[in-house]
Amino acid sequence: MNQCKTFFMIGAGNVAWHLSQALKKANYIPIGVYSRHKTKAEALAEVLNCRAFDSLDNIIESANLFFISVKDDAIADVFEKIRIHAKHSLIVHTAGSVSIDIFKDKTDNYGVLYPLQSFSIKRKLDFSNVPLFVEGNNAETTSLLLNVAENISRHKATILDSEHRKKMHLAAVFASNFTNHCYACAKQLLNESGVSFDAMLPLIDETCRKTHDLSPEEAQTGPAVRYDKNVMAMQESMLQGAKLDIYRCMSRSIHETAIKIEDKNDKLRFEQNQSTRI
Amino acid sequence: MNQCKTFFMIGAGNVAWHLSQALKKANYIPIGVYSRHKTKAEALAEVLNCRAFDSLDNIIESANLFFISVKDDAIADVFEKIRIHAKHSLIVHTAGSVSIDIFKDKTDNYGVLYPLQSFSIKRKLDFSNVPLFVEGNNAETTSLLLNVAENISRHKATILDSEHRKKMHLAAVFASNFTNHCYACAKQLLNESGVSFDAMLPLIDETCRKTHDLSPEEAQTGPAVRYDKNVMAMQESMLQGAKLDIYRCMSRSIHETAIKIEDKNDKLRFEQNQSTRI
Repeated sequence: MNQCKTFFMIGAGNVAWHLSQALKKANYIPIGVYSRHKTKAEALAEVLNCRAFDSLDNIIESANLFFISVKDDAIADVFEKIRIHAKHSLIVHTAGSVSIDIFKDKTDNYGVLYPLQSFSIKRKLDFSNVPLFVEGNNAETTSLLLNVAENISRHKATILDSEHRKKMHLAAVFASNFTNHCYACAKQLLNESGVSFDAMLPLIDETCRKTHDLSPEEAQTGPAVRYDKNVMAMQESMLQGAKLDIYRCMSRSIHETAIKIEDKNDKLRFEQNQSTRI
Repeated sequence: MNQCKTFFMIGAGNVAWHLSQALKKANYIPIGVYSRHKTKAEALAEVLNCRAFDSLDNIIESANLFFISVKDDAIADVFEKIRIHAKHSLIVHTAGSVSIDIFKDKTDNYGVLYPLQSFSIKRKLDFSNVPLFVEGNNAETTSLLLNVAENISRHKATILDSEHRKKMHLAAVFASNFTNHCYACAKQLLNESGVSFDAMLPLIDETCRKTHDLSPEEAQTGPAVRYDKNVMAMQESMLQGAKLDIYRCMSRSIHETAIKIEDKNDKLRFEQNQSTRI
């Protein structure tokens, strides 16, 4: 267990694709790749220069590290099939919303390594820039996972338990999946106005860049934060269906957030006045 | 009218701040700045090296170009007060959702110059990277506005009428204001998990960068596009109030969009099969 130098990758999807290559780059030795889709397993195995498997029944090899990087619902099933080969290994899943307890009482050494990033096989990505969150079932596995994390990312890895990781994953859904859907809605609306989506890119870039300098509450602009009722009513009249629902609950939430901040500032000012009086 | 070389800026807010400096940089001569907030008018006037006004009654100067860059509801009022000084000028507002007709039958030469960007006084911004959309009340004013646009931005300016501009502004609300609010929601959820917002920045950056290479529909990841009911139910149970509403309508809209794309692909495959058979 002290020498985590070989790994087996269960899964060949977006996360497995990028994680396994980052591991290889950090001198971890790939033993095999499994995917139920043969072509996917073969594509990743070719890149890693190791064996490909499309059935878990054929696997006889073991490794120091078994990464399970399949969809959430399939983790328990694939684990059952590999646990005999992995009983002396460290078993690790990579899911944000699955508890570490999925392995509890079933094997000795297990944990989670969650990369906070949106991966696409089609896109190159600098894995050293991915923040990693780890959890082990005991101090030794946690320490081993921190060590793996340090070897593949320049970000300082963070120990995070399953409950907090679930909440962070939910935050990532808002920051990535929902923002991306906002882009999709914008693209559809631009189509209706005959303007290319490319025209929107400087705005999208700047909105993103602002997060590095200003808090999102501070950076908020537009009709909802100003509570510009005329513009909002006019914009609602241009929408229907799902986009109208999004417009309404987003605008309400932006307005409520702005009021909370205003109240907080008022309270601060009041308290400052009180303390000045005293 | 042929020589649009002097300008007067009505407003000293986010747009006025950046636009007037871009104009000066392109050798337009600032005559004055008006804001009802004296300090704001003075701050911008100092940068531009021109006179500051906090009352429209004092203005006697004129300029080739009058830019009205105040909040939507105030455009008509400030125009009434300056029209006498601006009767031989080109009057331009900069609002996405206000029709050019706000000036109709009230002056001879008028138009709109709409910069598609989210401006903050606090942030430096390369104005030459801002896409500009113009509309004039006749061919001459349109041509003059195109010329101004060419001088201040390296993007090719686009002629766009008021109805299409309104739709584009709505698209910008989705792509900028709503994505920014998603960041704000993520930040609040991260606070609950004890993780710093900084950890989310590589994910936010990558989600933004993807828009340059993939269509947002293609780039979509996460539980909603996979329609992962277990994760979605679990995540809903962690939310309440406005964030729960956003989660629900966003997830439904992401799923509906994915189905539409799937249907379209199915239809394409069917049609390809049909044509192969023929």
